[in-house]
Amino acid sequence: MVTNKRLVPEGKPKEEGGIFGMYSVDRENIASLVYLGIHSLQHRGQEGAGIAVSRENELDIHKGKGLVDTVFDEEIISSLKGRAGIGHVRYSTTGASKLVNTQPLLIKSSRGSLALAHNGNLVNSQELRLFLENNGSIFHSSLDTEVIAHLIARSPYSDIEEALIDSLNKVKGAYSLTVLTEDLLIGVRDPYGFRPLILGQKEDSYILASESCALDILGADYIRDVKPGEMIIIDEDGYRSRQYMPIQENRFCVFEYIYFARPDSSFNGNNVHLVRQEFGRQLAREVENLEDIDVVVPVLDSGLSAAQGFAEEAEKPFQFGLLKNRYVGRTFIDPVQKIRNLKVRMKLNPMREIVADKRVALIDDSIVRGTTSNQLVEMVKGEGAREVHMFISSPPVTHPCFYGLDTSTREELIAAQKSVDEIREEIGADSLTYLSLEGLEEIMKEKESGCCSSCFSGDYPTDIDRDKALLK
Amino acid sequence: MVTNKRLVPEGKPKEEGGIFGMYSVDRENIASLVYLGIHSLQHRGQEGAGIAVSRENELDIHKGKGLVDTVFDEEIISSLKGRAGIGHVRYSTTGASKLVNTQPLLIKSSRGSLALAHNGNLVNSQELRLFLENNGSIFHSSLDTEVIAHLIARSPYSDIEEALIDSLNKVKGAYSLTVLTEDLLIGVRDPYGFRPLILGQKEDSYILASESCALDILGADYIRDVKPGEMIIIDEDGYRSRQYMPIQENRFCVFEYIYFARPDSSFNGNNVHLVRQEFGRQLAREVENLEDIDVVVPVLDSGLSAAQGFAEEAEKPFQFGLLKNRYVGRTFIDPVQKIRNLKVRMKLNPMREIVADKRVALIDDSIVRGTTSNQLVEMVKGEGAREVHMFISSPPVTHPCFYGLDTSTREELIAAQKSVDEIREEIGADSLTYLSLEGLEEIMKEKESGCCSSCFSGDYPTDIDRDKALLK
Amino acid sequence: MVTNKRLVPEGKPKEEGGIFGMYSVDRENIASLVYLGIHSLQHRGQEGAGIAVSRENELDIHKGKGLVDTVFDEEIISSLKGRAGIGHVRYSTTGASKLVNTQPLLIKSSRGSLALAHNGNLVNSQELRLFLENNGSIFHSSLDTEVIAHLIARSPYSDIEEALIDSLNKVKGAYSLTVLTEDLLIGVRDPYGFRPLILGQKEDSYILASESCALDILGADYIRDVKPGEMIIIDEDGYRSRQYMPIQENRFCVFEYIYFARPDSSFNGNNVHLVRQEFGRQLAREVENLEDIDVVVPVLDSGLSAAQGFAEEAEKPFQFGLLKNRYVGRTFIDPVQKIRNLKVRMKLNPMREIVADKRVALIDDSIVRGTTSNQLVEMVKGEGAREVHMFISSPPVTHPCFYGLDTSTREELIAAQKSVDEIREEIGADSLTYLSLEGLEEIMKEKESGCCSSCFSGDYPTDIDRDKALLK
Amino acid sequence: MVTNKRLVPEGKPKEEGGIFGMYSVDRENIASLVYLGIHSLQHRGQEGAGIAVSRENELDIHKGKGLVDTVFDEEIISSLKGRAGIGHVRYSTTGASKLVNTQPLLIKSSRGSLALAHNGNLVNSQELRLFLENNGSIFHSSLDTEVIAHLIARSPYSDIEEALIDSLNKVKGAYSLTVLTEDLLIGVRDPYGFRPLILGQKEDSYILASESCALDILGADYIRDVKPGEMIIIDEDGYRSRQYMPIQENRFCVFEYIYFARPDSSFNGNNVHLVRQEFGRQLAREVENLEDIDVVVPVLDSGLSAAQGFAEEAEKPFQFGLLKNRYVGRTFIDPVQKIRNLKVRMKLNPMREIVADKRVALIDDSIVRGTTSNQLVEMVKGEGAREVHMFISSPPVTHPCFYGLDTSTREELIAAQKSVDEIREEIGADSLTYLSLEGLEEIMKEKESGCCSSCFSGDYPTDIDRDKALLK
Repeated sequence: MVTNKRLVPEGKPKEEGGIFGMYSVDRENIASLVYLGIHSLQHRGQEGAGIAVSRENELDIHKGKGLVDTVFDEEIISSLKGRAGIGHVRYSTTGASKLVNTQPLLIKSSRGSLALAHNGNLVNSQELRLFLENNGSIFHSSLDTEVIAHLIARSPYSDIEEALIDSLNKVKGAYSLTVLTEDLLIGVRDPYGFRPLILGQKEDSYILASESCALDILGADYIRDVKPGEMIIIDEDGYRSRQYMPIQENRFCVFEYIYFARPDSSFNGNNVHLVRQEFGRQLAREVENLEDIDVVVPVLDSGLSAAQGFAEEAEKPFQFGLLKNRYVGRTFIDPVQKIRNLKVRMKLNPMREIVADKRVALIDDSIVRGTTSNQLVEMVKGEGAREVHMFISSPPVTHPCFYGLDTSTREELIAAQKSVDEIREEIGADSLTYLSLEGLEEIMKEKESGCCSSCFSGDYPTDIDRDKALLK
Repeated sequence: MVTNKRLVPEGKPKEEGGIFGMYSVDRENIASLVYLGIHSLQHRGQEGAGIAVSRENELDIHKGKGLVDTVFDEEIISSLKGRAGIGHVRYSTTGASKLVNTQPLLIKSSRGSLALAHNGNLVNSQELRLFLENNGSIFHSSLDTEVIAHLIARSPYSDIEEALIDSLNKVKGAYSLTVLTEDLLIGVRDPYGFRPLILGQKEDSYILASESCALDILGADYIRDVKPGEMIIIDEDGYRSRQYMPIQENRFCVFEYIYFARPDSSFNGNNVHLVRQEFGRQLAREVENLEDIDVVVPVLDSGLSAAQGFAEEAEKPFQFGLLKNRYVGRTFIDPVQKIRNLKVRMKLNPMREIVADKRVALIDDSIVRGTTSNQLVEMVKGEGAREVHMFISSPPVTHPCFYGLDTSTREELIAAQKSVDEIREEIGADSLTYLSLEGLEEIMKEKESGCCSSCFSGDYPTDIDRDKALLK
Repeated sequence: MVTNKRLVPEGKPKEEGGIFGMYSVDRENIASLVYLGIHSLQHRGQEGAGIAVSRENELDIHKGKGLVDTVFDEEIISSLKGRAGIGHVRYSTTGASKLVNTQPLLIKSSRGSLALAHNGNLVNSQELRLFLENNGSIFHSSLDTEVIAHLIARSPYSDIEEALIDSLNKVKGAYSLTVLTEDLLIGVRDPYGFRPLILGQKEDSYILASESCALDILGADYIRDVKPGEMIIIDEDGYRSRQYMPIQENRFCVFEYIYFARPDSSFNGNNVHLVRQEFGRQLAREVENLEDIDVVVPVLDSGLSAAQGFAEEAEKPFQFGLLKNRYVGRTFIDPVQKIRNLKVRMKLNPMREIVADKRVALIDDSIVRGTTSNQLVEMVKGEGAREVHMFISSPPVTHPCFYGLDTSTREELIAAQKSVDEIREEIGADSLTYLSLEGLEEIMKEKESGCCSSCFSGDYPTDIDRDKALLK
Repeated sequence: MVTNKRLVPEGKPKEEGGIFGMYSVDRENIASLVYLGIHSLQHRGQEGAGIAVSRENELDIHKGKGLVDTVFDEEIISSLKGRAGIGHVRYSTTGASKLVNTQPLLIKSSRGSLALAHNGNLVNSQELRLFLENNGSIFHSSLDTEVIAHLIARSPYSDIEEALIDSLNKVKGAYSLTVLTEDLLIGVRDPYGFRPLILGQKEDSYILASESCALDILGADYIRDVKPGEMIIIDEDGYRSRQYMPIQENRFCVFEYIYFARPDSSFNGNNVHLVRQEFGRQLAREVENLEDIDVVVPVLDSGLSAAQGFAEEAEKPFQFGLLKNRYVGRTFIDPVQKIRNLKVRMKLNPMREIVADKRVALIDDSIVRGTTSNQLVEMVKGEGAREVHMFISSPPVTHPCFYGLDTSTREELIAAQKSVDEIREEIGADSLTYLSLEGLEEIMKEKESGCCSSCFSGDYPTDIDRDKALLK
C-alpha cells in the first residue's frame, strides 16, 4: 500500500558510519585534511564517502559510492576550496546502496546553504516524514539527515543555532550530527550519547570526529568527548558549548568498544584496545574449563585484543594459530572444483605447527554468522587440533538495535533463535562461551558512567514500538 | 550577498536537453527501450543522462554524468525493471556540471513517488524558489524541475493531474515535461509550445519524445506533435488529452530547425533536413554575388543540408571541399610545436583538389565563434582558394534566449557586438551573408503556424525583465 | 599436429593497418607528432596502436589494444622523449586480438635496438618461420614483422641498411615498412608497391606515412609517394633514396581507392574522394536501367563519393535518403522486444520524405554482408520506396587477398559463392549492379601505372600456392 | 656506448617474485586454481602477474601490470582453458616496470610452444645475451627467462627435458623455474637452492610453488621441497624426479625466513613464523640491556613474529604499542599543511596508553630506510615514551645480493655506509641492536643444512666479478 511505503522508506539504511568536521581560521585547503579525517574513519563505513566545504559564503560538495580513495583524487580534493568542511563515510546493508543516500547532504533553503552529516538512527523518522510530506515537503532520499534538514527549513527561528535546537527537540533516537553553514561548523550529540563525537584541536583549528584516531592522523590534540545533549558551535572566535538538552543517563553504544571502533581510538579516555583486553580478561575469569586449553588463538583481526587479555588472565600461551592474508581476493572457482572452506581460507590460514594435537581456544568478538565460525573450527581441526573451544568477548545479541547499529547483519540474531548449546553444535566447537552481560556492564560502569546494552537485554532507553521491534 | 545568491542559483543550467517517456501495457523491461529513445536524442545533451522506471507502485532511477553509453550498461538497464519509464539527456554549459543537476528528478511526497524530466527554461523560477524557500522548502539542485516538484507537493489538489495543472499555472516560460507516477505517464507542453514534444505509438505502448527520430529507432509510429498547452495522460487504457491551458500563439523555437534537432526528425510533419535545404535555397535567392561563386562547400555536419539547397537554387556545383575526420582526438602538442589551425584541422581537412583556384562558398548554419570560422577560411585559402565567401543559413543572433537555448555559448552573441562587416573582417572572408529574418519567417509561416525568433529580433513573447535580459 | 601449427600460426592477423614515421633534427617531443600522425590513420586499424621513439641511442615504446586515444594520454606521450619515432595502428580480425601482436616491435640484437612497424602480408612467412625456428630462433608473436626482425638479426651484414636489404631479398609479398634505429629512420616499400607509403616534409623534418592525410594534419608538405622497391633513409643530413630492388609492374592495391583510404588522402596525386566519384560516374555509364531511378541515395559514409559521381553522371537528384546517427550505441534489447532492423537503424535512419513513392538507387562501395544490405533495402522499402536498386562501385570480390587486405571479413566472399542474381535476391533489391572490372581498370590505368585487382580476377602477381588459396 | 648497453640491459629487474605450476589429469579450468596459487604468493611481487595454460597442444597466456586481482577477472580466467598451467607474480624496482618484462614468457620455437616462469637472478646473463645476440638472437625483454628460452631453442637436443638440462648447464646463479609445454610441466631448482620451490599434491594433480601457503589455499598436501639441482617432470603419469646436476652445498636464501616469505609458509618443514620467533628469542639472548626495557612493541607487520619470541625470551610484556591502519591511503597535503610523520602515521598509530613513560623496545626485521625508522622513533617518543630501543632480528646488510634479492631497495645498504652507532644516531633511538650473524647461522644450521647469508658476509657461493659487485 502506498501509505505504508511512505511510512517505511524502502532501503532504509542503518546509519552507522563516521563523521568528521574541521573549522580552520586561515587554511584554504581544508578538504585535504577532511580527507585524512574520514580516511581514518574508513572502518566505520565503506559504502560511500563525501566532503562538503564552505568558503566565502559558498558551499561545495563531492560524494560518491565506495571507499574514500575511490571517491576522491587529488584533482577533486584541490577543487574543494574552503576553510571549513565536513565529511562522512557511509555504511549500508542495502544491496543497492544508492548514491542519493550518501552524505553530507547539501541543501538550499531560506536559511541559505547548509550541509549536514549524521551518524545514528532516529526512531521517529517515519512519523516525521509523514507529517512533513503532508505539509508539502518532498524527499529525495531515505536519509534521516533529510528529515532533520526539513525540520530546520521549517523552523520559525531565523537563527541557525535556534532552528537546529528547535528541530532536534522534535526528533527521537540516536544521532551525532555535524552541520556546516557559510560561516559556522556545529556538532551535536543526542541526549543519550548513543553515538560518539569527539572534540579536538590543531593549532587554531577545531575538529569534530566520530573517533579520536581521526585526531591522531592530523597530529591534533584531543580536548574531550562532546557530552550527551551538548552542542558545539565553532566559528572564527573558537568554539562555544551549549547544553541544548538535559543529559539523559549515558547510553553510549557498547558495541563501539566491542567491535566497531578502531582499537587505537579512545572514548572518554578509555582506549578501545585496552578495554577489549579487559573484556578478554573478564571472559577468562568467567570460564570454567580453562584447564582444557593448551593455546589461545585470536581470530584476526576482530579477536586480537580480547585474546591477548584472555591469554594473560588465563596464563595460557598466546599464539597466532590463524595467520591473515594481507591480500584478500576473489575466487573464480566453479562448483566441481570445490575446495573446503575456501572463502575463510582466503583470509586466514591455520598453522599446523601451532594447533596440531592442541586443545585450542579460539577468541573472537562475536559470532558473525554460524557458517564462518563453522569453517574456522573445521579448518583448525583439519590441521590436527584435538579440541576447539570458542570464546566470544561479548554477550549473545538477542534483540535488534534501533540506534544505528545494524545488528541484523553482524549476527542475523542467531542468538535470538537458538540456545548457546545449539549454536555450539552448529559451529562444531567442543565448547562455546560468551562473556556475561554482568561482566560486560561491570567493566563499562568503570569506564563510562553507563552504556547502551539493549541489544543484549532488550531494555531500550527510549520508547520503542514493540510491534515494530518484533517486525524487524 | 546571500539573498541574491538564492535568487540567482549558482550554475543554473540552460535546459536544452531531450526527454523521452514510454508507457507499455505488458512489457517488463521498458528501460532497454527508454535507453534507445534517449540514445537517439543524445545530440540534444551530452553532459548527463538518466532513466526512471515505474513498476508495481515503485519507482527506480539511475543517472550519471556523460554520454548515455557511459552512464548505462547492460547490468544497469536490466536492473531497472518496470513497464513505464522516462529518460533525459542533459546539456549544460556550466564547467562543473554537477551530478545533482542530472534528470529525471525522483522525489517522494504526500502524493507518493514522482519522477520528472524537463526540457526548457522557466522565466520566473527565481521568484518561485524564493517563495518556496520562505515557506520551508529545501532545494537540492538548481533545476527548474525541482521548482515544479515542490509546487506539485504543495498543491491542495490530491489528484496528480489536477496538482500538476495547478502547479503549471504558477510557472512561466518554456517547458516540455514528462511526469512518471506509480501508475501514470504524463506529458505536457507549455502554452507557447517553445520546446518540442511528440506523441507516438508502438503496438499498445504510447511514447512521448522531444523528436520523432526517437520513434524511428523503435520502429514506432508518429501520431502527432503534442499541442501547446496540452497535457497527454497515458495509462493502461491508452492516452487522453487535456487542453489544460489555452494555446497562445505558436512560438516553436526556430533554432530546432536551424541547428538543434537531428536532420531526420520532423516537427508537425516538416522534416528538419528538408527545411534546412529550404533555408539554403532562400539564402541563395537573397544573395546578390552568386556569379562570384565557383563551388558550394558545406561546413560539415552543421551546414550540409543548407548547402545542398543553396547549391541547387544557385545552380552551382556542390562539393565536399572540407572532409570530416571520423575520429576526433585530443592534441598533446606543446606551444613550440605550433601547427596552424590544428584544432579545426582535427575535424575537417580541406581538399586542395576541390578548392584550389576556386571562388568557394562556405555554407554553415551559424557562426559558432569567430575564431573557428577564421581558421576555416584560412585553411581553405591555404589550399589555394581564390576567394572564400561565407554564407550563414540563419539571421545574426543579437538577443539572448530565455526559453532554454543557450545562445551565449553557440554564438557568444558576436552579432550583438559587431556589424556583419566587422564579423566578416574578423573571420577573414571575402564576403559574409546571413539569411534574412524575413526570409526565415516566411518559410516558418508556411511550415508552422508561427515560431519564436526572439533571439534574432528581441521580440519576446513573454514578459521578460529587461534588466535581467541585459544582465545576461 | 605440432609441425602444422608452426607453419600456420594461430590467429595470424591480416595486416592492414597504418604506419607513420618522423625524423626531426631538433625536436625532443616527437611523440606528440607521431600521435597526430597515427590518429589520422585510425581508420586503417582500431584494434591496437603503438609508438616507438629514439633518443640518444635509446629506444622506448608504448603500445596497447584499442583506439589511439585509448592507448595514449598526455602523461604517456610526454614520457616518450625522442627526436625520431614510428607509430602503428593495427587492424585484426581475430577475436582475441592479443597485445603481443601490436606494433611497433621493439627488439634488441647484436645490431643494437631496433623498432619495426609493418603494413602488409608476407606470402612466405610460414616457410621463413620454419627455417628460422629450425635454426634456433624463438617467436613471441605471429607477426610478419618478427620474421623480418629475425632475418635482420641473422644477416651477415653489420650495416643496418645492408642487413635490411639482405633480409628483404628473402621475403615475398606485400609490405610497407618503417624501421627505427638509434640514429636512423628507414622506410621501404615492396617491389610491387602493394601497400602505400608517402614521403613528406615539415620544415627540417621528414615524414613517412601510409596516407597523405597524415601530412595534412601536421601542416606538412607532400613530397612524393615512395616508389615500389625503394628504400628511404632519413638521418640528420636529410633523406636519401636507394632503389634496393628493381620495380616490378605497379600493383598498388585498388581497394585503397575503393574503400580503405580516407577520402581526403591522395596517392600519386590522385585524390581518393575524386577517384571514388569517377567510380560512381563509370558505374552510371555502365547501368542500363537508369530511367528506372528517381533518386540517388548514398549508403553513408562508404558510398558517399561514388553516389555523388553516379548522380551527376546519371543526371538524377542526389539526396540523403539515409541519415546517419552521430552516436553509435549498443542495444540491450531482449529477444521478445524484437525491433526490425535495429542494428542498421542505430546507424542509419531512412527518410520517408525522400524515399516514399520513389524508385531509389542505393549506392555503396561494396556489399559487406548480405544481411546488412538486406536490412537497408527492407528499411527503405518500409518507408514507402516503390523500388530499390542497389549499385556497387566495385566489382564482385571472388578471390581471397594474400597481400594484406582481409577480404574475408569485408565480404566473406559472398560473390565467390553466389551469382549476382542470387545475391540480389538475398538482399531483396529490385536490381543489383556491380562496377565492371574493365571499367575499374580503365580508371586505374589513367591514375596509376597499374594496380592489383587480383581479388576480383584471381590473377595474382606473385606465386601463390593454389591449394592454400583454396584452403583460405 | 652501445656495446655496454647490451651488456647491462636497461631496467634489469631483480627477480624476486613468485612462481606456481599445476598439472591436473582431468580438470579443464586449471586457470582458476593457478589464480588462487599466485594470489597467495602476491606478497612476493606486486608489479605484474601472468598465467599461461596448456590444452590440447595449445598454449594460451594472459598477463598484465599490477596486482593479481587487477590483472585477472572472471571472464579472463574462464577464457584460459587448460588442464595444466603456470603463473607468476613479479617484483620490480625499476620505475617503468614494463609490460614486456612480465612473466610467464610464451614463445614458439622449433620445439613447439613453451611457457616459462622464473624466480631468481642469473649472474652470467649478460655474457649469455652477448653470445646469443652475436649468433643472431633477438631479445624482446630484459628477462633472464628469455635467455633461458633462447638456450633451449638452440640446444641440439630435440627432447625438451634434455634441451632444458643442456641449457641450465650454461647458466650460473639463482633460479627456480617452471616450464610448461603442450604436454608437460617441469620444475627445476638451481644446484645451490638459492630460491625456494615446493612440491605438493591435490588428489591426482601435482603442484609446484614458491611457498607452501599456495598449497594451503588449495587444500593441497605438501610432499616435499624440490632439492637443489633437482628437476621434477609432471605429466599424465604423475611426477618423476631427476637430479640433473649434483647438489652443491645448500645455499637457501636466509632472507626468505627473515622477511620475504609469508609467515604461514614452511620450507623443509620449518614454519617461517616460528623461525622468526626464534630469531627474536636469539636476539633477546644476545641483548645486554634487557633490564632497560619495560615493554616490547612490534613494528607491524614485519616485526610481529620476532617481537613475540623476543618478549617471551626476555620475559617482558608484549604489547601492540603501534596499531596498524587497515586502509592505507594517499595524502593530498600541500607543504604548508605539514603534519609530522604523516606517511608513517597513515600506517601505524602509536598508543599513548601503552608507550607513555615506558622504556620501549621496538622490534623490526630490518631497517628499511633510516627515515622511516626515524619517524617511528619520533612518533613513539611523541606519545611520551621515556626511551626507545630498536632491535633488528637480522644482521646488518653490508653487501649486495646477486641471487635475486633486491637488497639495494630494502636497505639502500645503509649498513655498508655507516657504523651501527651512526645508524642509531640517525634514527634517534636510545640504543640499536642487530641480531649477530653467528646467532642467525646457528639457527639456520639447525633448520636447513645451510643457507646463503652472503649479503651479511660478502662471502658469495658463486664466482662473482668483484668489480661488478662494487659497481652495483
